[in-house]
Order: sequence, then C-alpha cells, then structure tokens
Amino acid sequence: MTYRAPVKDMLFDIRHLAGIDEIAKLPGFEEAGFDTAQAVLEECARFNEEVVAPLNVPGDRNPSSWNNGEVSTTPGFKEAYRQYIEGGWQGLQHPGPFGGQGLPKTIGAACGEMLNSANLSFALCPLLTDGAIEALLTAGSDELKATYLEKLVSGEWTGTMNLTEPQAGSDLALVRTRAEPQPDGSYKIFGTKIFITYGEHDMAGNIVHLVLARVTGAPEGVKGISLFVVPKFLVGKDGSLGARNDVHCVSIEHKLGIKASPTAVLQYGDRGGAVGYLVGQENRGLEYMFIMMNAARYAVGVQGIAIAERAYQKAVTYAKERVQSRPVDGSMNSSAPIIHHPDVKRMLMTMRAFTEGCRAMATVAAAAYDASHHHPDAQVRKQNQAFYEFMVPLVKGYSTEMSLEVTSLGVQVHGGMGFIEETGAAQYYRDAKILTIYEGTTAIQANDLVGRKTARDGGQTARAVAAQIEKTEGELARRDTVAARAVLRRLSAARKAFLDVVDFIASQTKASPNAAFAGSVPYLMLAGNLVAGWQLARSLLAAEDLAAKGEDTAFMQAKITTARFYADHILARAPGIRDSIVEGAESVTSLAIEAF
Amino acid sequence: MTYRAPVKDMLFDIRHLAGIDEIAKLPGFEEAGFDTAQAVLEECARFNEEVVAPLNVPGDRNPSSWNNGEVSTTPGFKEAYRQYIEGGWQGLQHPGPFGGQGLPKTIGAACGEMLNSANLSFALCPLLTDGAIEALLTAGSDELKATYLEKLVSGEWTGTMNLTEPQAGSDLALVRTRAEPQPDGSYKIFGTKIFITYGEHDMAGNIVHLVLARVTGAPEGVKGISLFVVPKFLVGKDGSLGARNDVHCVSIEHKLGIKASPTAVLQYGDRGGAVGYLVGQENRGLEYMFIMMNAARYAVGVQGIAIAERAYQKAVTYAKERVQSRPVDGSMNSSAPIIHHPDVKRMLMTMRAFTEGCRAMATVAAAAYDASHHHPDAQVRKQNQAFYEFMVPLVKGYSTEMSLEVTSLGVQVHGGMGFIEETGAAQYYRDAKILTIYEGTTAIQANDLVGRKTARDGGQTARAVAAQIEKTEGELARRDTVAARAVLRRLSAARKAFLDVVDFIASQTKASPNAAFAGSVPYLMLAGNLVAGWQLARSLLAAEDLAAKGEDTAFMQAKITTARFYADHILARAPGIRDSIVEGAESVTSLAIEAF
Repeated sequence: MTYRAPVKDMLFDIRHLAGIDEIAKLPGFEEAGFDTAQAVLEECARFNEEVVAPLNVPGDRNPSSWNNGEVSTTPGFKEAYRQYIEGGWQGLQHPGPFGGQGLPKTIGAACGEMLNSANLSFALCPLLTDGAIEALLTAGSDELKATYLEKLVSGEWTGTMNLTEPQAGSDLALVRTRAEPQPDGSYKIFGTKIFITYGEHDMAGNIVHLVLARVTGAPEGVKGISLFVVPKFLVGKDGSLGARNDVHCVSIEHKLGIKASPTAVLQYGDRGGAVGYLVGQENRGLEYMFIMMNAARYAVGVQGIAIAERAYQKAVTYAKERVQSRPVDGSMNSSAPIIHHPDVKRMLMTMRAFTEGCRAMATVAAAAYDASHHHPDAQVRKQNQAFYEFMVPLVKGYSTEMSLEVTSLGVQVHGGMGFIEETGAAQYYRDAKILTIYEGTTAIQANDLVGRKTARDGGQTARAVAAQIEKTEGELARRDTVAARAVLRRLSAARKAFLDVVDFIASQTKASPNAAFAGSVPYLMLAGNLVAGWQLARSLLAAEDLAAKGEDTAFMQAKITTARFYADHILARAPGIRDSIVEGAESVTSLAIEAF
Repeated sequence: MTYRAPVKDMLFDIRHLAGIDEIAKLPGFEEAGFDTAQAVLEECARFNEEVVAPLNVPGDRNPSSWNNGEVSTTPGFKEAYRQYIEGGWQGLQHPGPFGGQGLPKTIGAACGEMLNSANLSFALCPLLTDGAIEALLTAGSDELKATYLEKLVSGEWTGTMNLTEPQAGSDLALVRTRAEPQPDGSYKIFGTKIFITYGEHDMAGNIVHLVLARVTGAPEGVKGISLFVVPKFLVGKDGSLGARNDVHCVSIEHKLGIKASPTAVLQYGDRGGAVGYLVGQENRGLEYMFIMMNAARYAVGVQGIAIAERAYQKAVTYAKERVQSRPVDGSMNSSAPIIHHPDVKRMLMTMRAFTEGCRAMATVAAAAYDASHHHPDAQVRKQNQAFYEFMVPLVKGYSTEMSLEVTSLGVQVHGGMGFIEETGAAQYYRDAKILTIYEGTTAIQANDLVGRKTARDGGQTARAVAAQIEKTEGELARRDTVAARAVLRRLSAARKAFLDVVDFIASQTKASPNAAFAGSVPYLMLAGNLVAGWQLARSLLAAEDLAAKGEDTAFMQAKITTARFYADHILARAPGIRDSIVEGAESVTSLAIEAF
C-alpha cells in the first residue's frame, strides 16, 4: 500500500481541536458526532487507499491526452470515478434536498485530504464540482438549481470554473469573453478561456462550465462581469441531454505536474455562440465567483496538506529501509537505516510537523465554517464567519507554501534516488508547485489577508485571534512540563511578533500601501505559522491530558514531541519575519525598475 | 538572447571583494590582473550566451538517449563541445605544462558560473573533467599524467567520477567494486557503478573514468578503497587509442531534471575485466577522491548560483512584460507590468540578493584558494587554506539550497504560465533539485562543516571568520548612511547567533553528537547566510565609496539596495536558526523510530 490515511490524527483533530461533539449539537448536524466522523473517515480511507491511490503514478506517466477536441483521461480514472460517484462521496457536504449527505465541513475536509493524498490530479475534478455547486446554491435560480444541482451533487456531471483568459489571470478586470442576450432569456457566449481544470474529459456525462463574461454594454472592469452556466451538452426540461453546446477544447497544457488532470483551453462560440444561462444578476459575477473561489481556496489549502502527508509517508518508508552509514552517537556497530541519522530525523520531523500543524489549522477553520452556517446565535455565527474568513488565506497560502518545503525535503530524504522519476518522490515535488499558484497565488491570498481581512476592520479580527492564542498560552503556563514550557516560549514570541505586524499592516495599508504590501506574503507566512503552531500547542495540551489518563500514550507522546518540534524549529522563524516586515519594507520596493 | 552573463557584477566581486590586483602579485599569476579578468569574462560571456545557452531548452526536450550501450547527446551538444575545446575553456585553471592557461580560480569560477547558467546539463561534462584532472595532478604517476593530462586539459577527452554503487551512496565504506592485480602492474576491475554523470556520451574521443574499488584482500570499510583510472578506450604508448575497454553503459536514468546530461549505469568487467591503472597508492583512494570531490563541491555550489542567476533573469523579463492589475499605491491608472507590484519586487529582490550574495561568497572563497596555493608565505597559505576549506561546505550547501528557493520563486513570478513546461521556468526548478544532492547532500556538507571544519579545531577557524566579520561591522559603524546602519544591525545579530552556535557545536559534537548533528544543516544554513551577507556588506562599503567618486552610480546604488535587502530579509532569519539549534536539539531526535 503506497498511502495510509492518517485517520487517527484526523480524528484527534476533529474531536479535540475542532470539538465535533459541539458541532453535533448544531441544528442540522445532529447525526454528525464523533462516531459518524469515525465511520465516514474509515470508509473513505479504504476507498482512497485501495481505489484512488494506486492510480497516482500511472496518472503521471500516462497523463490525459487530447485528440481532436476530446480528452481521454488516464486508464483507470473513469472506473475509479464511477466508484467515487457510487460511494456518494461528491455529496458529502452538500444539502440533503439535492441528494447530499449534509455532513459538516469538519468531516468533509478530512475526506478531501484523503482523496487529494491519494491522487491530486484525480481529486481536482470533484474539487471543481464542489465549487460549481456552491455557486449555484448561493446565486442560481430555482430553475438552474433544479436542472443542475442533483446531477452535480451525485457527481454524474462535473463542474468547472472559467475565469482566466490569456490576458486576464489575477486581474479579472481584463476579462473579455462576451455574452449576448437572446430573446429567450439565455445568452450567447463568445471567447477563449485558459487553464480550465477538467475543462474537457471522459469521466462524466456532462460538464457544467461556470463562466465569467461581459454582457454587451456592461461597464468596464470588474463591475461589468457576470457569471454564466454553460453546459457541454444542453439539458432538456426533463433533464435529458440534448445538443452539443458550442464550447470546445482546442488543446490541453503540457505541465510540470498534476499531469493526469487535463488543463484545457476552451473556445466559446466559434460555431455561432455557446448557449449560456445567467447565474443571479448581471454584473455581479465576481461576487458569485468569490463564493466558488473561497470554497476552492480552502480546498487547495487542503491539497497542500494532502501532498505533504503523502510525501512524508513515502520519505519515512524509504528512511526506514535505506541502509547507509553508522549513527553518529556510536549506538550501532554497522551501517543503519538512515532514519537513525539526526538530519534525516530533522527532515522527517519538519515534514511531519508542518503537515500536522496545517491539518490542525484547517480542521479548526472548518469547524468555524460549520458554526458560521449552523449556529442558532447570530452573534456566534458572525464571530465564526470572521474567524473562518481570516483563516482562508492562511489555509490556502501557508499550507501550500509549506507543501513546497515538505515535498522538496521528501526528495532530499531519498538522496540520488529522489531525483530518479521512477522513485516517485519527484512527482510530489512537481505536483505541489501548482498549489501556490492556482485559485489565487500566495501573493493574492496575502493581498486578501492584508486588505479585506486585516486593514478593513483595523486589525480587529487579527487581534481577536491573538487573544485566543494568549488564552492557550495561559493554559500552557499552568503546566509544569518541559514540552509545554518550550512551546509556550515560542508561541508567545510568535504571537507578539504577529501583533506588531498587525499594527504595522493596519496603520500602513492606506498611509503607505507599498510598505504594507511589501510585507504581505511574509505576514501571511507569519500568521499561518502562528496559527498552525497554536493548534499544535492546543494538541499538546489535549495529548498531555489524554496521556495522563493512559489513552493511547504512544500516539499522545508523538503528538507532544511533534508540537514541541514545531515550536522549536518552525515557530522560531516568526520573530525574524516580523523584523523583515516592520523594518525592511523600504528595501523591497526602492530599486528602480530599470535596475532589474 | 535568453541569458546575459552578469559580467559587471562578477568583475565588481573579483576586483573589490576578492582583490584581483593582490592575486596578480602572487607568483604564477602575474598576468592575471583585472584587465585579464575582464577580457576573459567578456569572451566567455559571448561564447556562453551565443553557443551554449540556446541549447538549454532543446536539451530538456530532447535529452540524451541510450541505444545498445551508446549514448547520443542532444543535437547541437557535440558541435558546441567542439567549440568549447577550441576556445581552450577546459584548460582555464589548469597548469601550463599540460596545456592549460593557469589562471586563478577567482577568474575560473566566474567562467564556470557562466557555463552553468547557460546550460547546467552541458556544463557537467567539463565539471567532471576538472575533477579528474585534479585527482591525476595530485596523485597520478608521471606515466598517468603523461598519458592522460594533456588530453583532459584540452577537453579532447573527458573525465568521470565513479563512486556510487546501488548499496553505496553517501556511505563509501560499502563500496564492493573489486580490483584484481595483474602481472603487468595493471588491475582488472569488476563491479557496477551508478549515477555516473557523462559516464557515456558521444562528444569526446575517449572517456577517462576515475573509479573507486577494492583491491583483492584490502581491509573492510573506507580504509580499503583505492582509486583507478579506467579509460573507455585503452591508450597506446604513443597516445593513440587502442582496444575498447570492458566498461559498458547498460542504461541511463530518467530524471527530474538535467535531462540532457546522461546519468549512466556502468558495468565493469562483464567481459573478462576492465583494465584499470592505480592512482597513487593502494587503499588511499578515498583521500584522492576527496580532492576531486572538494573541487567538484565548490563547482556544484557555483552551479547553484548559476541556475539562480538564470532563473532570476527569466523572471525579471517576464515581470517587465506581463501586465496585470494596478499598482497598490495608485501611481498608475491602468494595469501595469507586474514588476510594479510590491510582492513581485519582493520575490525578484530575494532571487537577486541570494544570487549576488552567494556569488560574492564563492568569489572570495576562490581568492582564498588561489592564495592558499600561490602565496609565498607558508603561514598565509595555511590561513587561506583553512578559510577555503571552511567555505567549501557553505558554497556547496548554502548556494544550492538557496537555488531551490530562487528557482521556486522563479516559477511563482510567472504565475500559471510558470507551471507550463513550454515557458521554461519549470526547467530551472527541476534542474536545481539535484544540486542539493549530488557531490554530497546538504547533510553531508553539514557533517563536514560540523566535524572536520568546526569541532576538529574547537571552533577556531569559525571564530576567525567571525572576527573578520566583526571588522566589517566596525567599518559599517563608521558610515553615517541609513543602509550601512541597517546592514550593521542584522550582520551583528547574525554573527552573534553564529558564535553561539559555534560554541554549541564545538562543545557538543563529542559530548552529545546527536544534539550537534541535529543542528548540522541549520548551522550550515546560518553560516552560509552570514558569510554571504557579510560579503554583501563589504560590497555595500565598496559601492558607497565608488558611488561617492561618481563611478557607475546606478550600479552602485543597486548594489547598496541589494545588500540592504539581503540584510533585512535574509540575514534576519539567522537568530531564529540559532534558537532552533541551541535550544531545539532534543525534539529533533526524541521521537522513537516506530512512531514515524
């Protein structure tokens, strides 16, 4: 078996950090207690370990291919996707009325991690479908919902997000695709979209494209963008598939990684116009697209955790098998498995601590999402909403950036073998690199964190997070263990560094935007580092309590050591980042363009 | 043109940091003053920009291929290599008596950087030849020298290093290839060597393999390893090529990067035994191999700088062309080239500062090498030797680790386009990953730094380096500029962090080896960071002086800004690394193997 889902660690987070028993008290989540979580995760683990994970290497060696407008996925993908539908996995978090299971995101996120660990390329198709469902649920008319949602929730049809055009990447103001209103209320869509993940494939009966375009006469810039549904096959009133729509895949990209996932160039309207249906109101497309993007951004963060987990597992397996050199402490008389060497342990611990820290952060963010939607008290919903929204750029930005470091270490642990493609470690290194780019680069996440999430409320939400961290410090201070003391010191220093930066960002964003945005990505990295470290500190507290009760002491001891490692080696980076942001802005922007 | 050699920056380092005019006072280097350096670098730039650089992408798309024991290199490589020979580039640093030009390493290293920037895969062939030349010069008999050196120095024949076997990577004690003494004084060699760069190819008339093997009856472990010359074609007394030797390429590897460079599996002795000639004395092979390896390690560090430079240039070009979004400071009313966005500048400045910092470090190390070989005063030679040897693991380890960060940022600057292979940024990301692995992984460099370079002399050399840095701090303190003050603060903090770590390492390596080696790679990263930052601080001092004289003020101003950026954003990482090493060792090694 090449992947074993870390069910125990996930359930630890779900129970002790996210408080699944509290979530199960929320209206609508009555069935979603710990036992449900455990049952779902175990079944999900089986499916992904046995069905999806074995397709990861074949997908890299024999990627999706394009032929005359049609895309064939890697052999085996179609059958695995059929089983994915049959298992009802697409509907896990979606509402019962459309055929979903309505489970909390707290559980769904763990399942998402498993699917992505098993096969990042495969998992992208459901990930995009989730986004399309969110957009239709939020802004779609009853008719659109009735026509599309059930099939999307079941996974019979898949969804896509069509934002990017050759001249319009991060800058959606530049979108040129146009929509001409038709007498029947529909639109004809004309334009070219690029980088469309699963924009064409052979795994589903229909593909539901969600497309940004400008209605004739709409204003310039982002205020003139509308969102449309453009199905690959038109759908009759009875739900039957009709004519092929005028959207065609003219090529797919040759990429560094996630090769099995087809990245399509889609041409709309070359044969008279693609039939599209407006979602919500005209010129509000960007707003709706953000709904999809926010769901997708969180999910891409989980992809970072997922690939880090898989890279970690592979590196551990190799480090236990590969025999080279004697341990430096003289504990063995002959060459030992390399896991005995301190630097190999340092690399594995770094991989492990990053992965567990980000998983804990993402799980707690998911719980806030659940509370923000289901809690009966509006004030509590609002607090959780603010917390969740603050977390989204951290989950997306930090978890994916750390996945680059982790997958690089994964290759490094393998030494020369890591550079040989047949070994498989290099695939994770290649696959991970897209994660800091798509659904908004790390810089875009950081702009969101600086602008909408920090400066807009004068740093209030950020300081509320810091106040929560301070409470955890209080709990650590009441412990008399070496590990708690070590973690307390680093957590406290990191929180103070964070608060300095929040003050800097809140005061500079308007006064000196270049200075604030010069520190945007470092701020994101500091905030993500802090929050992940905080959640591991909470893990340590829970693990110490549980170990004291004699519960699974080996696991709890490992959790404590991992939390301490994170604090000593990763949280320790925080004060230096503070200095760079608060004192180093000028040297970022002062070099003249011509001098580059 | 896809690559422009940074001749001006190289000459700045060679003149103002390495002191080429002082080097030209050393016996044997009388012709090697600034004017020579300039002339050589300009000619070298032309050759690499025009002839070698254009083959970089073709090499990736159409790599070396194996067919029935023969390896064909990428079309164009053979002709470019012919021009490389004709230009006399292989002999640049090698002794006149064997046809070389005997130039200082201070100049040769810059030429090496250009060749590697132009084409890492192509440059590996000369790099390995250099190593073979070093080994023969140091330990070869007069007969071996007479037979092989001239052809290697001219580049007509190429060299290889054969260390690794499937079970023996970093751990050479496990080498099993055997050598049977023959009545005529030669040996018959039997065994399998893997990962042999340019172990087989079609660019040269002969390939001179330098092979580690065990003579029948030799002791176990590294004390029983000898070094042999095994030519692909036997060489007659008159220098003519004779019979094909019994060494055959049975396959080449399918790799993540440097695809044009064939990585061979070589089979020795399947048809009766490969004829080999002992280099130096039996059982001293490891010692001689270290000569090759030390030259090669420095050269691989330069490869890190080279690929970082190339990635930087590509990212700058894209950032100036790609138009997306308005600047945050409201300075433009429409979408601007992305280089105007603070985070893009931050990424480019990080790439630039790392590259210039490591180039400065490597250039100064090269000057110490030159003085260690040519200075008339034995004491000065010894000091320079100690300094150079301290620098080798930093140049190799730090410059290659930073190249991973730089090439990753290079992809990131390109956004989604970076992930598309046709763009070319991804190739650098893939190519760079081997640099932290071959010629000794970063961990192996760090072990060298901890054991031989720090603990062995009780930290004396390390503290001598710190004392030199303190002198630079004194000079900065006498300046009244904002930049000098900013750099001084970070440099001083980083030096103090370094000294704490040196004390820790020097005291713990024997007492608590696990603790010392748990911090080995972080120590290397801290030391490399500090030395590169120090050299940029020296650059700042020189640039301020030259700018005051009105010399090339735009260049000098950029140098000052880059030095300050390095201090604010990279040197600022140093104190956190200190904390991790000195206070975080326990959590690195305390997790039980079974818990992974």
